[in-house]
Amino acid sequence: MNNPVESDSNTPGDASGAGALLVVSAHAGDFVWRAGGAIALAAERGQRAKVVCLSYGERGESARAWRQGASLEEIKELRRGEAEAAAGELGAEIDFLDADDYPLRESEELIDRLVHIYRDVQPAVVLTHPSIDPYNGDHPAANRMAIQARILAQAIGYQAPGEPLGAPPVFFFEPHQSEQCDFKPQVLLDITSVFAKKRKAMECLPAQQHMWDYYTDLAKRRGVQLKRNAGPNLGFTTDTMGEAYMRLYPQVTGELA
Amino acid sequence: MNNPVESDSNTPGDASGAGALLVVSAHAGDFVWRAGGAIALAAERGQRAKVVCLSYGERGESARAWRQGASLEEIKELRRGEAEAAAGELGAEIDFLDADDYPLRESEELIDRLVHIYRDVQPAVVLTHPSIDPYNGDHPAANRMAIQARILAQAIGYQAPGEPLGAPPVFFFEPHQSEQCDFKPQVLLDITSVFAKKRKAMECLPAQQHMWDYYTDLAKRRGVQLKRNAGPNLGFTTDTMGEAYMRLYPQVTGELA
Amino acid sequence: MNNPVESDSNTPGDASGAGALLVVSAHAGDFVWRAGGAIALAAERGQRAKVVCLSYGERGESARAWRQGASLEEIKELRRGEAEAAAGELGAEIDFLDADDYPLRESEELIDRLVHIYRDVQPAVVLTHPSIDPYNGDHPAANRMAIQARILAQAIGYQAPGEPLGAPPVFFFEPHQSEQCDFKPQVLLDITSVFAKKRKAMECLPAQQHMWDYYTDLAKRRGVQLKRNAGPNLGFTTDTMGEAYMRLYPQVTGELA
Amino acid sequence: MNNPVESDSNTPGDASGAGALLVVSAHAGDFVWRAGGAIALAAERGQRAKVVCLSYGERGESARAWRQGASLEEIKELRRGEAEAAAGELGAEIDFLDADDYPLRESEELIDRLVHIYRDVQPAVVLTHPSIDPYNGDHPAANRMAIQARILAQAIGYQAPGEPLGAPPVFFFEPHQSEQCDFKPQVLLDITSVFAKKRKAMECLPAQQHMWDYYTDLAKRRGVQLKRNAGPNLGFTTDTMGEAYMRLYPQVTGELA
Amino acid sequence: MNNPVESDSNTPGDASGAGALLVVSAHAGDFVWRAGGAIALAAERGQRAKVVCLSYGERGESARAWRQGASLEEIKELRRGEAEAAAGELGAEIDFLDADDYPLRESEELIDRLVHIYRDVQPAVVLTHPSIDPYNGDHPAANRMAIQARILAQAIGYQAPGEPLGAPPVFFFEPHQSEQCDFKPQVLLDITSVFAKKRKAMECLPAQQHMWDYYTDLAKRRGVQLKRNAGPNLGFTTDTMGEAYMRLYPQVTGELA
Amino acid sequence: MNNPVESDSNTPGDASGAGALLVVSAHAGDFVWRAGGAIALAAERGQRAKVVCLSYGERGESARAWRQGASLEEIKELRRGEAEAAAGELGAEIDFLDADDYPLRESEELIDRLVHIYRDVQPAVVLTHPSIDPYNGDHPAANRMAIQARILAQAIGYQAPGEPLGAPPVFFFEPHQSEQCDFKPQVLLDITSVFAKKRKAMECLPAQQHMWDYYTDLAKRRGVQLKRNAGPNLGFTTDTMGEAYMRLYPQVTGELA
Repeated sequence: MNNPVESDSNTPGDASGAGALLVVSAHAGDFVWRAGGAIALAAERGQRAKVVCLSYGERGESARAWRQGASLEEIKELRRGEAEAAAGELGAEIDFLDADDYPLRESEELIDRLVHIYRDVQPAVVLTHPSIDPYNGDHPAANRMAIQARILAQAIGYQAPGEPLGAPPVFFFEPHQSEQCDFKPQVLLDITSVFAKKRKAMECLPAQQHMWDYYTDLAKRRGVQLKRNAGPNLGFTTDTMGEAYMRLYPQVTGELA
Repeated sequence: MNNPVESDSNTPGDASGAGALLVVSAHAGDFVWRAGGAIALAAERGQRAKVVCLSYGERGESARAWRQGASLEEIKELRRGEAEAAAGELGAEIDFLDADDYPLRESEELIDRLVHIYRDVQPAVVLTHPSIDPYNGDHPAANRMAIQARILAQAIGYQAPGEPLGAPPVFFFEPHQSEQCDFKPQVLLDITSVFAKKRKAMECLPAQQHMWDYYTDLAKRRGVQLKRNAGPNLGFTTDTMGEAYMRLYPQVTGELA
Repeated sequence: MNNPVESDSNTPGDASGAGALLVVSAHAGDFVWRAGGAIALAAERGQRAKVVCLSYGERGESARAWRQGASLEEIKELRRGEAEAAAGELGAEIDFLDADDYPLRESEELIDRLVHIYRDVQPAVVLTHPSIDPYNGDHPAANRMAIQARILAQAIGYQAPGEPLGAPPVFFFEPHQSEQCDFKPQVLLDITSVFAKKRKAMECLPAQQHMWDYYTDLAKRRGVQLKRNAGPNLGFTTDTMGEAYMRLYPQVTGELA
Repeated sequence: MNNPVESDSNTPGDASGAGALLVVSAHAGDFVWRAGGAIALAAERGQRAKVVCLSYGERGESARAWRQGASLEEIKELRRGEAEAAAGELGAEIDFLDADDYPLRESEELIDRLVHIYRDVQPAVVLTHPSIDPYNGDHPAANRMAIQARILAQAIGYQAPGEPLGAPPVFFFEPHQSEQCDFKPQVLLDITSVFAKKRKAMECLPAQQHMWDYYTDLAKRRGVQLKRNAGPNLGFTTDTMGEAYMRLYPQVTGELA
Repeated sequence: MNNPVESDSNTPGDASGAGALLVVSAHAGDFVWRAGGAIALAAERGQRAKVVCLSYGERGESARAWRQGASLEEIKELRRGEAEAAAGELGAEIDFLDADDYPLRESEELIDRLVHIYRDVQPAVVLTHPSIDPYNGDHPAANRMAIQARILAQAIGYQAPGEPLGAPPVFFFEPHQSEQCDFKPQVLLDITSVFAKKRKAMECLPAQQHMWDYYTDLAKRRGVQLKRNAGPNLGFTTDTMGEAYMRLYPQVTGELA
Repeated sequence: MNNPVESDSNTPGDASGAGALLVVSAHAGDFVWRAGGAIALAAERGQRAKVVCLSYGERGESARAWRQGASLEEIKELRRGEAEAAAGELGAEIDFLDADDYPLRESEELIDRLVHIYRDVQPAVVLTHPSIDPYNGDHPAANRMAIQARILAQAIGYQAPGEPLGAPPVFFFEPHQSEQCDFKPQVLLDITSVFAKKRKAMECLPAQQHMWDYYTDLAKRRGVQLKRNAGPNLGFTTDTMGEAYMRLYPQVTGELA
């Protein structure tokens, strides 16, 4: 096994031997485009995969519905349904905290709710937005809350049910204009085997149809890079698909590879 | 298995299922202090581990012998013997290219010799110095030659025996004053199980006895960080020992962990 | 025309074919020292130029008046008058939001007022402070509010009158101690033709007379660099004057130059 | 005109009112994938466009031909022909300096030949590789030589025919794995009107057919970003195509836009 | 004297000719581990040394007490006593602002209290946490408040008793995992002569006994670096002990050394 | 004394108690504009100050003489005389290594000559160019040779007369376009008391008369910053003059100030 130091340890309350995956997403659609592959892989391996949407993205990411004259509540309902369908395709649970978006406000109450979720889920791995995005202030706000809540959940003195959290690694998924967000791929994840599921999940979001091909193309490009950075190329086909991530904390491992 | 995309692929001419480890070291002692743990781990797993010392470190890192009046040839012989003994403790092969040190000169001839070694060893993993060191110009020179040779060995058009190289990951081991070299640990390697071997290897270098404790202390400190960054802390004892590395290229993986 | 992709597009509600310039300034004097040339150039070209002063700088930048025993209201009035006179010299409109300074507090209310201004002015270009200033916390606060408001004004779902904003480029003007603020000039603007106006505007701020020469010298220095970075030097005289800017977003152009 | 300070000044020995474009490329194909759009745009505007290929890329970028058993001279001839055809499609002149590749060696002789070209062409704009590329040592070597030669060509004391060079801006075109090369797009160039020519030029390089779609996809992605960063979106269609560049020196301009 | 420009000027209300040292610490123990040597040195020289603990660290840094079932008030009392004892060993005054920790909330009220302290103490030197810490959100919060308060205290218009502050240099002390906090030692302080006091102060914190050796080892390592970076090595013994710091502002001096 | 750890230790072969200052300058004039103040201060304190000019700057920095038709030898002679006169005003010795400029070539022979100088002068402080300059390749070349020679001079095994060097701090003086060279002032040196000498030294270089005022203005600006960053402002007059420096290695000190 590649990483013995983590073996069967990420498993509080989990009989399968693999810890849970927690995804903190600013808006209802973010987790699909940027982390759909990682979520589907985790679910296939039998890990619990939990997505938390801080907001529905009702103001900032629903332009078409607004133009069609939908009400705020209708838009929320619409996006909730789409996100639930997408999560279903990926094999993930999904929670909605219904904070406002544009702006998504950092608040102690929201952070506290995240702490409760951390303590309950006891994730072995956490995914969230990167800390910089000059095009969208909600994404860095989600990042800061996800990290702050993880730190607080580790403190025995913080009043919330459940055991203090361990130190799960945190990965940042890829933003829309990666270079402008100082996003440098540090981890290339092979999602070839689950890409069909990711594509289906994307197709649950019909208002953003132009994104389907955009993120399919991106997966191909990350797949090309994945092959170029893998030791030898055996095992990769021409249609290898990938997702890119950054790490907040150093990798802990029992083997350099 | 943690990283299926690399499984049984790092194995050109290797029946064991695990590819070789290649370490490019500027001077005869560098590989012991900075990468002794990684080498011993690879050897224990049955991987071929090969150390290439570009120079003996005869001018820059043998102050005691110079003060005792030894000749250049005597110093080289001394350091060669010590390095061979240390490599033996770690389970590694060792080659000496006998370039001059202080300064270690970048040359096409030296790079070409490295290309031949890459083509012959077909390493699955490469370790070398980081690219910056304001205290020692030989270390960045070794870094540049190791990387240049890896790139050339990949080109089918480069005239050297053997198959073109794949794309083995490159790790930089930790320099002496890490922060001044922009060294930020990205990978913390658990070397607890082989630390006794690393200590023995260090003790093969009697002229630098003050380094034994210095690098033992460093291994403890990296061990503490390893525990702090590992998901849950199960499986670590209070004497966990670690080594820190940086990556030149993105990690390729089939699972986020 | 250099940049056809933007031609006649920056002109919502503007018959002249050139969009408006919006300047978000933390204190009443900032826009004069740092962006006076850009403002005068825009006004001369017939663009609408609008300055928004978040505060009067009554606490942090009126040391002389405080020492003379003026009251808070008197200081505000004084600075308002000076800033209006300076804006007049440059050909700009000016608004005062009268937030407190030292500290300038980020608030939803202030950001919302900026969103209304963005929606009303529909700027083609935005100028504000850089994001880092270890000597003055108000400047980064103004930066964050200016950027956040720009993003919110783009969202159709954000409730404010007017059309959603396009994507006007944002330029950071030069801080007082530029290197300590990680300010690296990316754009050198030739303000030679309007420097006399900028000087007159500076002279509207008599309490900071030592700044007149300081910023005249800076304009000369940026002028020297402008000549050194311009293709050939034809067209520049020895008294070329310049202002330096950074970009938040990539430049969009139809021609490399 | 957007940038009056440069108007009719980039024109030493050029009657058209527009200076020449000089592209310094490490290998014979680089200029096509990365700068084909900029070259075609310049040619369409009537500017002289000159490509200098330091090498043919015979060792590092002709894997297919090597596998088919071609000789070194045959490969050079093949690549020369392809590059000439591609340059023809784009409307550019092309020179080959026939330095070796893999590695491309920095030499005084090669830099001196570049100085002569700078003095002769008197470029108004220079394009070359970025300074960092962990996958290809030839690209940074070309970068260093292109910049060094530009500096030397400016010195009246450097012995080469022609007038000393002015200070043409230098743009870095996009490398293959941009984020790993610290490449952050600072300029997004609209190449929609000439993309068909770029595609034709790419198709002159049949050995790298997989690159045709790769760089078409990249042009689409840069086009999407171009629209997202342009003031208002008017004037862009859904098939806007783009190329990304970085600047080595600050932009000099008469107008912020 | 090394730095004549600061001679007898750091002394508002201080007859000794040496200004005061102010340490802003997020939790009750931070100042001991990270700045104990600097504090003891200042006290020995006859400077006033004042420590301000924003919180007791009752939630985030008292795991053992929580596990033993202590109440919140008991824990605060315990940590207060320990910190007072440690400050006593170092020769420093200590104030507790009793803000909550985990999270330590930035607030105007807390910043205002710091401004009053700055105005009262008129420090010649300020020490606080660095601005980045991915493991602990309270440390950057303390940093931001310490810097903001310093800036406000300089403004004559800010309403608080006492004279406006000068411009005391600010040093960041070393975080627990320095490289992950972008901490690069810029100043190595020789604390050999007072290390025994620092050790005694550390021993006032019995709940964190594992830290005693950890920070003793760190002091040794910084001592080794101190010797390696000092002009000649005369005057240093093998047990030189050090502390590392970063500067927020440039050093002002009358002599390069 | 501010820094007891260095007291009377920088004095190999020097009876005065203060070590020597060594300045490594690419061209004959560089040391005057950028480090004239530091040199004059050292000389006034009785330190030996030694300037080494690697080249005369005959090709790259003598445009006027070339235009007047002077020969290479005449230009060298002219610049040598001017530089000697300037060094005389500052109180420094000066050596000329007469390497070519534009380009200044890094060579083992030149580095070896620098090693001999280091061993002979045994400098307590070293000044040289920064490592980055996109406008002038000779400056980074001088930087690399100055640092490499310092490292080699420390090695007992390097064959050159004299004792191995200690570890003198290295300061980078300010380049012409500081921000484009990633130059961030870390040390502001008060040169008020010797500015008249620096001005006289500048006036020894009549061909660059426009630089006299440019560098006088820069000294004023650095003086303003010096006052703004000094603890309290006592002791500074309105005409404080400064020079800015960066450090390559961490500062070693016995007191934070």
